[in-house]
Amino acid sequence: MISLFTDFGSSDIYVGQVKAALSHSAPGVPLIDLLHEAPSYDACLSAHLLSALSASIPESSVILAVVDAGVGGARRPVVMEVGNCWYVGPDNGLLSVIAARAKHFRVWEIIWRPQNLSHSFHGRDLFAPITAMLATNQWWPNALVETGHLEVMFGDIDIPQVIYIDHYGNALTGLRAANVPHSAKFISGNYQLGYARVFSEAPAGVPFWYENSVGLVEIAVNCGNAATQLGLSLGSQIQLSG
Amino acid sequence: MISLFTDFGSSDIYVGQVKAALSHSAPGVPLIDLLHEAPSYDACLSAHLLSALSASIPESSVILAVVDAGVGGARRPVVMEVGNCWYVGPDNGLLSVIAARAKHFRVWEIIWRPQNLSHSFHGRDLFAPITAMLATNQWWPNALVETGHLEVMFGDIDIPQVIYIDHYGNALTGLRAANVPHSAKFISGNYQLGYARVFSEAPAGVPFWYENSVGLVEIAVNCGNAATQLGLSLGSQIQLSG
Amino acid sequence: MISLFTDFGSSDIYVGQVKAALSHSAPGVPLIDLLHEAPSYDACLSAHLLSALSASIPESSVILAVVDAGVGGARRPVVMEVGNCWYVGPDNGLLSVIAARAKHFRVWEIIWRPQNLSHSFHGRDLFAPITAMLATNQWWPNALVETGHLEVMFGDIDIPQVIYIDHYGNALTGLRAANVPHSAKFISGNYQLGYARVFSEAPAGVPFWYENSVGLVEIAVNCGNAATQLGLSLGSQIQLSG
Repeated sequence: MISLFTDFGSSDIYVGQVKAALSHSAPGVPLIDLLHEAPSYDACLSAHLLSALSASIPESSVILAVVDAGVGGARRPVVMEVGNCWYVGPDNGLLSVIAARAKHFRVWEIIWRPQNLSHSFHGRDLFAPITAMLATNQWWPNALVETGHLEVMFGDIDIPQVIYIDHYGNALTGLRAANVPHSAKFISGNYQLGYARVFSEAPAGVPFWYENSVGLVEIAVNCGNAATQLGLSLGSQIQLSG
Repeated sequence: MISLFTDFGSSDIYVGQVKAALSHSAPGVPLIDLLHEAPSYDACLSAHLLSALSASIPESSVILAVVDAGVGGARRPVVMEVGNCWYVGPDNGLLSVIAARAKHFRVWEIIWRPQNLSHSFHGRDLFAPITAMLATNQWWPNALVETGHLEVMFGDIDIPQVIYIDHYGNALTGLRAANVPHSAKFISGNYQLGYARVFSEAPAGVPFWYENSVGLVEIAVNCGNAATQLGLSLGSQIQLSG
Repeated sequence: MISLFTDFGSSDIYVGQVKAALSHSAPGVPLIDLLHEAPSYDACLSAHLLSALSASIPESSVILAVVDAGVGGARRPVVMEVGNCWYVGPDNGLLSVIAARAKHFRVWEIIWRPQNLSHSFHGRDLFAPITAMLATNQWWPNALVETGHLEVMFGDIDIPQVIYIDHYGNALTGLRAANVPHSAKFISGNYQLGYARVFSEAPAGVPFWYENSVGLVEIAVNCGNAATQLGLSLGSQIQLSG
């Protein structure tokens, strides 16, 4: 299975070109759109989101992950192996939260280059062929060189920030709920947020936090739009109360 | 074939997780996104839309249908067989319009539970594995118990309301066109809407109704946006004139 | 492989119905969403965009292309062969820019009609079955009649207009960059746009043009939204300076 995690936009012209390349080079391998609305250009917020979503990816998957403001610049293209999954993307921190939280990981720099490499679309021209190579268990000679490390590491520390807002207006944070007691209260703007197990246990209209389905602290409003009501946007800070 | 009908949002983080689960458990089975922008939380409007769209689903399909404000609450998870198709989803009325219009249907409660069941994402954790089970013709022992009925039934009556607005601004109603003579006129706000066979037969800018491609009465404006011009939104009422 | 290029909206109810039909009639053939947000109803802008994107489509593909304001009217449904690809769509100019730029092309009118042909959704009812027929190398007798030409031809001339705006706000034009020297400057509103190789070579906030990944002149702003900053929309004119 190949999973895609990008900021290419789910409705735009880019994903289709990547998938055409993948489908051509790795015929028969299922392609799953994990997310194409990752925080644009923001490798750090995206890295925390990718780390949380990666728990939903079956073993033996290859994940093409591209949030890459530096495309065409000096950042290295890399392959990373964690558990039984392969990640393919830029060495700009995007893969580093997964790496920092893993027991073991291996990293290779991609030194292969295609005959025609556009300046602005390495997702299609460079990362997709390498993803297809891994997904089909072909190993081209001299495509990868093991380097053992990522150059940009954000570390494994949880971040008390909004990393994603879903279409219901729920705000996912970079805090893993397993690290937070249910007694914890958070401050966001003028609101204090207590814990609720599920939406239906919170009074309508009252903001709360809960452990969402990917293990993160999520801010929500029963029958409401939390992001609008609390004025939250990508990167907004929240803090523990008291 | 597995078809998906949800209010998860087509650009959001949820559909990919469901598809990763399905693709892992039902490898090789095609996954079709019927709609992920079903009326949010509204099982009744969604039930009428699903009934209309189901005519486009090939036989022997499994349909995962989730519009489920009560996730994590007491509503039952069910499987329904109608014709040669299987429907998997919550027993909150979402499947009931199809049932009410069918000659025969069978219903099972899903009593199987996964080891890890999130409170908020039964689409991924509960409905997807059961969908995969059906799509691969596996029948786990003690997964389903036949109950024969749905607890929530909206009935088979057409509803004179807007059930969906497409990206062109056309407004689909819950009225089946086969039940409405071409001579019928509808009132919507300050407009009276007559019948036209196709867009090009209606004068530009004049609202009309026609039988759309899924058999419903649809309100449209040739070269215009009907929803904006008539001030229509989900649930808006229309009425027969005279 | 079947690639889809339409203005059906990527989040709407139409693409899923087309894919259900394709998946049923051409089982096992990969379906790639090239774009479903083509300029609505605008066959000319869409034709230039399709021509540029077609370079990313692997050989031996079938492309279902539908931007079809005249659906249900008199325009002919056609099949076109160019290189090793097949295009299926309306004869309203949408396929004509590819044809005009090709060395050789062949055209057939589709004379087959399904038993149930809706007035408004030939993508599902007429073009999808023919696409599946071609993708599975079946040739139904009397489905196609070779006519050799398209009735509507826009020609091969580049157009100095915005043909697409992506979700970053970059504006693709109908000018092929191979025809434009790097010394060229364009005028757009109050701005003069010089060439930059990549985003990172342009000062932040300063509009520029570059050769994008599908070979077109694209207007962009490093760390900004070009369409908003320059007031660009679909069809906006730009002109060569001096």
